[in-house]
Amino acid sequence: YGKNTIKFLRLKREGKKHFVKEVEVCTHLRLTSAHEYLEGNNAAVIPTDTIKNIVLVLAKKNGIQSIEQFAIDICKHFMTTFCQVAYVKTYIQEVPWQRLQENGVPHIHSFICVPEGIRFCEAEQCKNGPLVVFAGIKDMKLMKTTLSGFEGFHKSEHTTLPERNDRILCGELFCKWSYGECKDFDFDCIWYMNKVRECVIEAFAGPPDCGEYSPSYQKTVNSIQMHILSKVSQVQVIEVMLNNTFYNVLDMKNLGLTNDKEVLIPVEAPYGSCTCTLGRKRFLEA
Amino acid sequence: YGKNTIKFLRLKREGKKHFVKEVEVCTHLRLTSAHEYLEGNNAAVIPTDTIKNIVLVLAKKNGIQSIEQFAIDICKHFMTTFCQVAYVKTYIQEVPWQRLQENGVPHIHSFICVPEGIRFCEAEQCKNGPLVVFAGIKDMKLMKTTLSGFEGFHKSEHTTLPERNDRILCGELFCKWSYGECKDFDFDCIWYMNKVRECVIEAFAGPPDCGEYSPSYQKTVNSIQMHILSKVSQVQVIEVMLNNTFYNVLDMKNLGLTNDKEVLIPVEAPYGSCTCTLGRKRFLEA
Amino acid sequence: YGKNTIKFLRLKREGKKHFVKEVEVCTHLRLTSAHEYLEGNNAAVIPTDTIKNIVLVLAKKNGIQSIEQFAIDICKHFMTTFCQVAYVKTYIQEVPWQRLQENGVPHIHSFICVPEGIRFCEAEQCKNGPLVVFAGIKDMKLMKTTLSGFEGFHKSEHTTLPERNDRILCGELFCKWSYGECKDFDFDCIWYMNKVRECVIEAFAGPPDCGEYSPSYQKTVNSIQMHILSKVSQVQVIEVMLNNTFYNVLDMKNLGLTNDKEVLIPVEAPYGSCTCTLGRKRFLEA
Amino acid sequence: YGKNTIKFLRLKREGKKHFVKEVEVCTHLRLTSAHEYLEGNNAAVIPTDTIKNIVLVLAKKNGIQSIEQFAIDICKHFMTTFCQVAYVKTYIQEVPWQRLQENGVPHIHSFICVPEGIRFCEAEQCKNGPLVVFAGIKDMKLMKTTLSGFEGFHKSEHTTLPERNDRILCGELFCKWSYGECKDFDFDCIWYMNKVRECVIEAFAGPPDCGEYSPSYQKTVNSIQMHILSKVSQVQVIEVMLNNTFYNVLDMKNLGLTNDKEVLIPVEAPYGSCTCTLGRKRFLEA
Repeated sequence: YGKNTIKFLRLKREGKKHFVKEVEVCTHLRLTSAHEYLEGNNAAVIPTDTIKNIVLVLAKKNGIQSIEQFAIDICKHFMTTFCQVAYVKTYIQEVPWQRLQENGVPHIHSFICVPEGIRFCEAEQCKNGPLVVFAGIKDMKLMKTTLSGFEGFHKSEHTTLPERNDRILCGELFCKWSYGECKDFDFDCIWYMNKVRECVIEAFAGPPDCGEYSPSYQKTVNSIQMHILSKVSQVQVIEVMLNNTFYNVLDMKNLGLTNDKEVLIPVEAPYGSCTCTLGRKRFLEA
Repeated sequence: YGKNTIKFLRLKREGKKHFVKEVEVCTHLRLTSAHEYLEGNNAAVIPTDTIKNIVLVLAKKNGIQSIEQFAIDICKHFMTTFCQVAYVKTYIQEVPWQRLQENGVPHIHSFICVPEGIRFCEAEQCKNGPLVVFAGIKDMKLMKTTLSGFEGFHKSEHTTLPERNDRILCGELFCKWSYGECKDFDFDCIWYMNKVRECVIEAFAGPPDCGEYSPSYQKTVNSIQMHILSKVSQVQVIEVMLNNTFYNVLDMKNLGLTNDKEVLIPVEAPYGSCTCTLGRKRFLEA
Repeated sequence: YGKNTIKFLRLKREGKKHFVKEVEVCTHLRLTSAHEYLEGNNAAVIPTDTIKNIVLVLAKKNGIQSIEQFAIDICKHFMTTFCQVAYVKTYIQEVPWQRLQENGVPHIHSFICVPEGIRFCEAEQCKNGPLVVFAGIKDMKLMKTTLSGFEGFHKSEHTTLPERNDRILCGELFCKWSYGECKDFDFDCIWYMNKVRECVIEAFAGPPDCGEYSPSYQKTVNSIQMHILSKVSQVQVIEVMLNNTFYNVLDMKNLGLTNDKEVLIPVEAPYGSCTCTLGRKRFLEA
Repeated sequence: YGKNTIKFLRLKREGKKHFVKEVEVCTHLRLTSAHEYLEGNNAAVIPTDTIKNIVLVLAKKNGIQSIEQFAIDICKHFMTTFCQVAYVKTYIQEVPWQRLQENGVPHIHSFICVPEGIRFCEAEQCKNGPLVVFAGIKDMKLMKTTLSGFEGFHKSEHTTLPERNDRILCGELFCKWSYGECKDFDFDCIWYMNKVRECVIEAFAGPPDCGEYSPSYQKTVNSIQMHILSKVSQVQVIEVMLNNTFYNVLDMKNLGLTNDKEVLIPVEAPYGSCTCTLGRKRFLEA
């Protein structure tokens, strides 16, 4: 049980310059006993209202250096303060506020919401177990208008899809990786120094002057994983999911026109989905 | 990988009387090899477009007797037809069309959408393993305006919640149970003869003339589980999640009024959540 | 300017029996001057926080007999209390809570949310003008699986639609009517005694044993309007909008099957829309 | 009546460099007669399917230079081709694809979706009347963390809001302006040369090094309007709506802490809204 979508803004001021972190926190607990379920005895139950208060107090006291560090703070607090907690998990996602710029000059206290990919993290810990940290990007929508195909696939009596070597590849990415057991990482440093977001984009799009051919969604997913693993040494395991939107080249023959991939109709349902989890030595796929 | 939200309507006619099943199907596969991820070799890949075609062909040929039976048909088809499939999972949810009535007379071909709880199911199978079937209801929003409290809970320095013995209990229910290894069940018969939906409501609300006191969300969740397990012998394990909306009694003192629980404000975020999984002999809680 | 989505629950108790009205209120004002826009002078501005307080105080004091009466109360309060108000408009929609039943016995304090059509209303008044009241139903999704066609329409070089005399008619209805200048109506009485909801359904579906042929969405919209106007004498003008979802009969020839309108695919975008406004003597169309 | 959300992608190639315009088009017509409503006579009705075909054919033939020009093309086509059309209106919004960059180098065929404000337009024409064009930005979410207050407002018995001179101003902007009767404008040139988006931001945020005090939402709305009117000579009338999210400074006294505007809770409902329409000589407010 726990509290979902605890939303708040943490404002930090350095002189006249303001910094904002607006987050949405979900914290869930499992207790060592179950009397509240079986007997309606609430003596061990930490109210979800108290969970909310603790999250807000930690934000006030510690600030939010990075969402990963804040998730660790929350898990540690519950595990060290309450002996009845058997398991704690905290999920945090960040509202994508970006500092406004006017003619290249950053504004001291004004921001715009730019949802081009949402940064999130998770931390979890079992009693007497290690604290494990995950991080990721979700809702990042990318498109390439060529150099994508799908050929040589399995055919059966129910196959009607033609082979194609020049289609649009468009999809929403979900990437989540594990930093393994929590060490003293500077998570924002890892994020920005390793240019994690840029890695994903490079692997998806290929070189800016020529691109790179994708023979399937699966291979593109694998390229993103390989690229992150090779560039960010702290990442242990990475899961990538690509929910693709198919763009159908409209047949305009009955309207007397030849449509040379100029007018395409996005097909939002059904949509294909492909997920793969890749680790450093082993490899798992789902 | 797989295809999500394959939406279609299956229409059945018996003379002038029409029957509709509109569903949303998601089918996912895992293959025995991973050449498509590593080498871009698609030879074993069943395109998601073919997955969609198979689902539609099975609907046309078999009809949809119950969503559970249809999910079983889909899983069996993939497992028996394609030797490269290591795992298959199918999720189906049903659009809640209800036959229209005019002065108590059912209409032969007209329907209304009544989303007071969405029926869904899941079937999954590993190569050489058993076919397991799950079913459930989601998005069912219930409220009781009294006979709910929360007292005697754990207090700490961060506790500000007062003890209450007369609050509103309002929440969205998610119930999912396992029928265990698939046998020759008539799933719609189980559903309607055992009045599964009515069981949930009875356990939530108590007797119509007096209700029943709920000492916590946790206990209400447990009551629903116990009631279903006692009434529906085919259910092996049941998971119930209650996402509750808190109704805050508005303090109107600064407006010169005494609010005796007459005006309440729903607090949609953050919201509490409580989940429990209960089996026939063992018992698990998360 | 004004306050949107003021959400609250008004609970009424008669002995052990409870009655709930949960509503969402939007109230907007226009002032007689504009100094706040031009000069930043707020002296005449009633804060939106005060608007919210007034709505809640009126709910506490008067209760909610019907949403129409409550919208009238709000408008009257602003127009009579504040001389700087040039115009006031209030929109209210009701959360569709229904009393639970167990084996036909109504529960004294438990409810289920059944969103099969949302009841709403609007009241508006200009300074020194009449108070006008509107009411309606929205988000009501209906389907008939036969006795709908579309033939004899205008053809041009861009027409590819075939003529059809047996298609599915499915759409979401929005109905809004005017009661004209506000009189001492018992609005819930009008609603329930005249069976407004049932009128819409009858006009859409036709007789339960045989239905009625619809030659176009436009004609169905007109039938609904005519039926309401003939049954509910208090209605002056009625607007009906039908946003239809097209169901495409899937061509399964390339899969070796003949699809006799058994498997249909809902096409959610683009969707057709048709609106008509009809009064008692005149008639307007948009 | 008409067709809503006609979604498609128009792809343009210049050698290896690709350009994309993905749009959502709604086109509505009113006919000179109403036989289809009254008598079910469809002879004059242009099917919504044909409307969709015409939009797609025009996109294929003309391309989409700017969404405004494309909306004009659509309106002109209907008004000049079909004598039974009394009125035509077209709304278009653009999916915010941005060309990807890798280390500052623009990619030839890869894009990212960046929804930081959606560009839209409208064109409408009555038979024998002028073609009028509107354009705008919607869903643009901005925040300033200081230099916003609300003081000196009207007080009454229901006022509980304190006066504040340092609050957070956060809101979603909707701006829509009229270019008046359609002339031979290069709409994209107006948009980019006049930096319309930048104008809105400057007026909202003030100078980057010091900001500018906002005494009310109303005044900020007016500032945006004045700034656009002064910078973009082609704009005749401008409507700006600001839906503000209130950030509540959390009282942490009962948790033993002093919260100096460090932890704030966004209040999403109810929300205030303020709209103003401003023209060049006259001025209207709603």
